[in-house]
Formats: sequence, structure tokens, C-alpha cells
Amino acid sequence: MRLSRYFLPTLKEAPSDAQIVSHQLMLRAGMIKQEAAGIYAWLPLGLRVLKKVEQIVREEMNRAGAVELLMPTIQLADLWRESGRYEAYGDEMLRIVDRHKRDLLYGPTAEEVVTDIFRAYVKSYKDLPLNLYNIQWKFRDERRPRFGVMRGREFLMKDAYSFDLDEASARKAYNRMFVAYLNVFARMGLKAVPMRADTGPIGGDLSHEFIILADTGESQVFCHKDLVEMGAPGPDVDWYGDLQPLVDQRTALYAATEEMHDEAAFAAVPADKQLSARGIEVGHIFYFGEKYSKPMKANVAGPDGKDVAVHMGSYGVGVSRLLGAIIEASHDEGGIIWPDAVAPFDVGVLNLRVGDEACDAACDKVVAALEAAGLEVLYDDTDNRPGGKFATADLIGLPHQLIIGPKALAEGNVELKHRATGERSVTSLDAAIAQLTGKAAA
Amino acid sequence: MRLSRYFLPTLKEAPSDAQIVSHQLMLRAGMIKQEAAGIYAWLPLGLRVLKKVEQIVREEMNRAGAVELLMPTIQLADLWRESGRYEAYGDEMLRIVDRHKRDLLYGPTAEEVVTDIFRAYVKSYKDLPLNLYNIQWKFRDERRPRFGVMRGREFLMKDAYSFDLDEASARKAYNRMFVAYLNVFARMGLKAVPMRADTGPIGGDLSHEFIILADTGESQVFCHKDLVEMGAPGPDVDWYGDLQPLVDQRTALYAATEEMHDEAAFAAVPADKQLSARGIEVGHIFYFGEKYSKPMKANVAGPDGKDVAVHMGSYGVGVSRLLGAIIEASHDEGGIIWPDAVAPFDVGVLNLRVGDEACDAACDKVVAALEAAGLEVLYDDTDNRPGGKFATADLIGLPHQLIIGPKALAEGNVELKHRATGERSVTSLDAAIAQLTGKAAA
Repeated sequence: MRLSRYFLPTLKEAPSDAQIVSHQLMLRAGMIKQEAAGIYAWLPLGLRVLKKVEQIVREEMNRAGAVELLMPTIQLADLWRESGRYEAYGDEMLRIVDRHKRDLLYGPTAEEVVTDIFRAYVKSYKDLPLNLYNIQWKFRDERRPRFGVMRGREFLMKDAYSFDLDEASARKAYNRMFVAYLNVFARMGLKAVPMRADTGPIGGDLSHEFIILADTGESQVFCHKDLVEMGAPGPDVDWYGDLQPLVDQRTALYAATEEMHDEAAFAAVPADKQLSARGIEVGHIFYFGEKYSKPMKANVAGPDGKDVAVHMGSYGVGVSRLLGAIIEASHDEGGIIWPDAVAPFDVGVLNLRVGDEACDAACDKVVAALEAAGLEVLYDDTDNRPGGKFATADLIGLPHQLIIGPKALAEGNVELKHRATGERSVTSLDAAIAQLTGKAAA
Repeated sequence: MRLSRYFLPTLKEAPSDAQIVSHQLMLRAGMIKQEAAGIYAWLPLGLRVLKKVEQIVREEMNRAGAVELLMPTIQLADLWRESGRYEAYGDEMLRIVDRHKRDLLYGPTAEEVVTDIFRAYVKSYKDLPLNLYNIQWKFRDERRPRFGVMRGREFLMKDAYSFDLDEASARKAYNRMFVAYLNVFARMGLKAVPMRADTGPIGGDLSHEFIILADTGESQVFCHKDLVEMGAPGPDVDWYGDLQPLVDQRTALYAATEEMHDEAAFAAVPADKQLSARGIEVGHIFYFGEKYSKPMKANVAGPDGKDVAVHMGSYGVGVSRLLGAIIEASHDEGGIIWPDAVAPFDVGVLNLRVGDEACDAACDKVVAALEAAGLEVLYDDTDNRPGGKFATADLIGLPHQLIIGPKALAEGNVELKHRATGERSVTSLDAAIAQLTGKAAA
């Protein structure tokens, strides 16, 4: 992508109402623009990262056996009256009346809708287990939206819903999501700790939040230090085998959000392993049994032919919020440091003298070679000064930056910079291409 | 994907309120479920096709130089007051009041929002031409939603917006979209005819609808027959060169929707070339100059340093509606016939005797080989009868079906069926794999 044909409206300074660094950097990097309180447009650079995060979540959900569908943003109030949540949900629900005076709402979550889909089609235990998920915009009318996409009103959520014949299978479904979540966040370069959590308006008796530690976190959390560095199991998991040991390994150590915090239990953690910090919630999983299936009559015929209400769980990932969380966890004074897996472009090519025949030709060659190798390249072909190009590439967090200027190029060289470490090396153009594409130089 | 782990709730019969064949088939094929009048959930099979259609639109927009962003679904009423459309838009606009009594709406289109984004950042003619697009859910509160996704209330639209310094460049931007649209629809196997159209509530003085001919079309259209078979220019177009000849070649022949129909001009078309038919609108493009930029003060400094209001156009594709249009254009009594480019899966593998060792092994082998070659495979590993498996594969429109049963397999053979032509051939397993992957048999 040529920057001269792209739309990357970076800002020198963030608006003063942006309080936390991720919000400031997303505005400065031209990723988002506020449209109303808690409602953002995703500018091209922000959308690219959002799509990468979304795709990682999708791939890990698919791997764990969940099946993707897409529920509409607008829901019928009547479904929420069936579950008893319509009145209970309160002011955070955006209530809407259509031209025919029918009560609608902008979905803040989708337990009711997915339960209605399930009961319309699934009649037998033979079709279980089933896990249906979608990645869709939600709306929660927060009283005080803030922190940019971290606490917005319109936000992108991955929400999965599991359906099982009994509690034992439902716990296996819960474990599959527990393990999948570990992989999701690890792939994005995040250290997410699962913590016992309150179930809130979703309900149920078993729940974990997945928490990133960051000074700007919205809530206080308490955990055993070893959980932070424990890592993820990775993709080679037997998803329909016994995942309990992987879950137990983590839940055996103390970890709880403030609402669930137990001083006495925490005191039993060795003093040098006690960690109390601020945390950002990036995922939340729930097992709630028959809470929705009973009132909404989501029954299947069991092996004995008798109808039973299915046991359900729900599993959320804050997809748009994750961009803020990743930036909180990975930035420096120069700007964002994207983990490779979610970077908007893999490589930035900075032409330090646009119009110079040799520089232009070298840039064209390298861009073509990198793109042919499947890399995504942002080519700064603008007539900005070198200092501005360096600053922009760092601000927007391009992991690898290939700097091409007339002086070095006269000797056949270019400069390669690694954003995360700041390391710079001077090499031949071909060696740089080879290094970036992972192939030996010709 | 194993069908036993998928969620494909097909129906024997369509509900009686589904009036047109695409609506009936989408319901029967388990692609959509109605959630409220004109509001649908996209079940897994439907979502797969929706994503393919969306991706084709995205690729062709990118090719033509448009830049993707994402605007929120919820918009501020104040922006529409600026353009003067808030009152004018009428009952189709879904108006919403939030908890702080602020007037919001669910965007039916986004001229105001994108103009606001533009004016916030773009100040100079040097940053033009610019074309920003997004693929986002829209809501129009139709008085009488019907025909399934063809006239829904919540629908997925690609909407692009061009910004240029003057009318001459704006017409070039219009031509780029005109040509891109020809390519978009051709890639989906559709014969779309551009027709002079009324501009309606978007405004402006130049507009074309892209129309698919189908008996169930919502409106009467009139055109020169040659336009139907004229085809698309394809991707190798010089997008910033002179596209006028490509456009003129089409606009020189008569083509108009009912609102713009000119009996006298139509009578001048040779009698054997006069075509009057029903049509389905799948795209609509507009040039409207300064209609939004003037009241909203979207100005840039021109080469002479003076501020001028930009000239704009907007360009819509009904992404979700296209699924209905494609089915209207491509089906038979057995069900849907997906064009390869938008099929939910490339190949269906039908195991006629699940549990039979040889059949299971052959199926496992072929599924692995096809997936390794990058094909998307739906493997019917259920214990349904062969007749049911054939009917489902045809109903959901899988382009290639590989039928593996014990009798033929005992002789080393499988059957390969082509959905569109109905052709069947018996070959060895390896030859079938080779044929489907386009590689020579080992």
C-alpha cells in the first residue's frame, strides 16, 4: 500500500480528553475517530488491526470446535421478556421502538437470541455438543463511556454459546473455551491470567475472567505470580479429550478479581508469589446451566427419549477492546509496538528521497519482492521529511522498517530497523529482502 | 468440516410466507433464520457465502483504489441535521434516544458520517482523489419488509464515498466505481446491467443502478439486449487512466429503470434488441457534487490556496441482498447452484456408508488431500441415508460432489458429480482428487 494513496491521518498531539495511553496512541496513529460518546469510526489503520485480532479469535474458536454464525445487532424485546432479563438489564440496554411501535433493542449480548435459534432446530441429544459463536457489534449504553475503545458503547465482541446434555459435558465445553482463550491471547502476544470472577447479569455459578495486567487496568486483581508466565498450551491439544488437567494447573493457583477476592486464601500464597495489580478484562466465560434453557424451553430428547433442558455456557472476548489492551501492554515513548501477529502491516518501506531515481527504483523493487512473498507493506512514498517518516513508522508501530536513502544506497545498502528492540542494521538490499521474507539471499 | 460437527439445519419445506424462490431456498438450506420482520440471523452456511461475497466486493474496491474503514452503526442525529436530511429521511430511519436523551439513529447510509470524517482531517487538494468505503450493517425501517434478505431491514451494505477537487475528477472517480462494479458482479457469476437511475433521497444528477434480470425482480427495467451479454473489463484496467471509453461503450446503449424510462428513446432501439424485463437492483452509484460538502463545510485548499467544497459521489452494493439475487439467477428444482466463487464449500464429500472401514478410510484420505490443496470441503459423515445426502448436497448447492459408496469403492472407484450441469463420472479416487485439485493424477 502506497501511503500517498492511503488514508492515515496521524496527529501530533492527542486530544486532552484522552486519559490513557492506548486511547491517546490510537487517536494519534489515525486508528480511530470518535463519532459520539463511546462510539468510534475505525479508520483504515485501526480496521486492519481489528481484522487481524478478529481473525485470530475466529481461528482459535474454529480449532476448538465452535461453529460461526452471525446474529443481527437488533433483537426483539419479547425474547428478553421470556428470559426475564428485559426489565432487569437496566439503562445499559439501548431500547428502540420501530415504526410499527414494536419494542426492539440493540443487543448487548445474545444468550436469548442464540437460545431461540437452538430451540428452533435442535431436538435431540445426538446433535450435541454444540458451540455457536459470532463476532458482531454490540451496544451497551454505558453511563460514562471512557478510555476510548476500552469502554465504548458500540463495541465488537466475540460471543460463543455452548449447549450440552448435562453438567458434566457442559464443563467439558467450558474447559475447551478456557483452553482456547489461553491460546487466543498468547497468539496476540498477551499474558492473560484466568481469574475466578463474578457472574453479574449473565448469571450462573462458574465464571472466569481473562485479565491482562496493566497499570491502567480498570480493576484490582490478585493472583499467584506464576500464572503470569505460565503460557498457553498451544494448538496441539486434544480438544475432545480430557482438558481438565490443563485447567486445573491454572485454577490450582490463587487468582481472583476484586469481587471474588478472598483475603485468607490470598494470604496462604507464599509472600514472594503474591501479586496484587491492576487488570484489564479481555475475556469472560460463564457456565450457567439451565438459566436460559428452562424459561425458554430449549429442550432436547435425551438417550431415554425424555426431554431435558440443555446446559449452557457463554464465552465473550472483547475484540475491539483488545486493541486498547494490546497497546497498554506494548508501547514506548515513540508510539505503539505491535506484536507481529496483529500488526497492521508487516513492513514499512521508507523512501527518504522520493523522486530520486535510484531510491524510487530500489523501493519499487523491495515492495514488489516483499508483497510477492505475501508480506503486507506500507510504502511511505510521500514527500514528507525523513524525520517525519521515522516518527510515523514508530508511532503506528510497524514491526520492521526498511529505510532507503540516497547515501547508503549509493553503496548498495539500506537500513533495517526492528521496532520492538530498536536494533538497526545496514545491509544490502537483497540481504534485507531475504531477511524479511525468511529466505536466503540470492 | 465434518457435517456431524457442523450446524446445518435444513428444512424439508419452506414456511408458507416465503414468497420467492431465493427466500424459500435460503430458509430450506439452513442459511438464515428470521429473528423479526426483515431481520435475520445468518446461520453458518449463509454466513460463509456472505463472507465470500463481501470479500469479492472488498478486493475489487481495493483494486480500484478505494480505502477501507469502518463506520459505526449508530450515528448522531446532529450530523443529519447539518445536511438537512434528518427530518427529510422519514419513517425508514430508525431513530433512537439514549439514556442521556441524546438523539441517535441506526445508519441507513453514511454520507454525513464520512463527510464529517473527511472534513476533520483532509485540508488540501494534494490529498485527493480519495475514496473511502466500508462494509457495515445498515438499518432501514421498511414499512413492509419481504422477500427475505432482498428487502430486509437490517442489511449488509458496501458503501463507498469519493472526494474530488472538481467535477471532472469526480466523474473519473465515478467511472472507476462504474468499472469496478462491472467486475464485482461478473466475479459472482452475475450479468449486471448498468441503467440510468433516479437519485432518490441521496440526491445528485448522475446515477446508475446495476440490475440483474430475474422474473422475480422488484421493478420493471428497459434496455438494449446487447448490454446483458457485454461482460466486464476484468482486473487489468488502468484505474487512473481514461475509463470513459469503457463507460461510454455501455451508456451508449439504452438502459433505464422505470422511473427514468423514456418511451421514445426506447422505441429507437431496434425492435429485436428491445428488452423489457423485471430487474433486481444489486448496486447503485451516485454523483452528487457539493450536496453534502457545502452544508457540512467539507472544504479543501485548492492549488490557488482558496478553499473549495469537494465534489462527492457515493457507491452502494447490497452485499446481503446479493445472496438472494444470486440464488434467483442460479437455482433449479433441486436447490441452489452456487457459482464457484461464492460457494460455501468447494466440494462435498458424501460417505454413503459411514462405519464401513473402506468408505471411512477413503473419505478421510480424500478430505485430507483436498483440504491440503486449499479447497474447502464439507464432509457428510452423518448416518443419514444416501438419498438424503444427495438431496442436501444439491439443496445447499455444493459445486462438486464426491460420492463414495462401498460398491464402487470395492472396484477402486468413486463418483464425481458436477452440481451445475448434473454430469456424473466414475473415476478412481486418485483421479478424482487430481481433477478437483487441478493436478495430474499420481
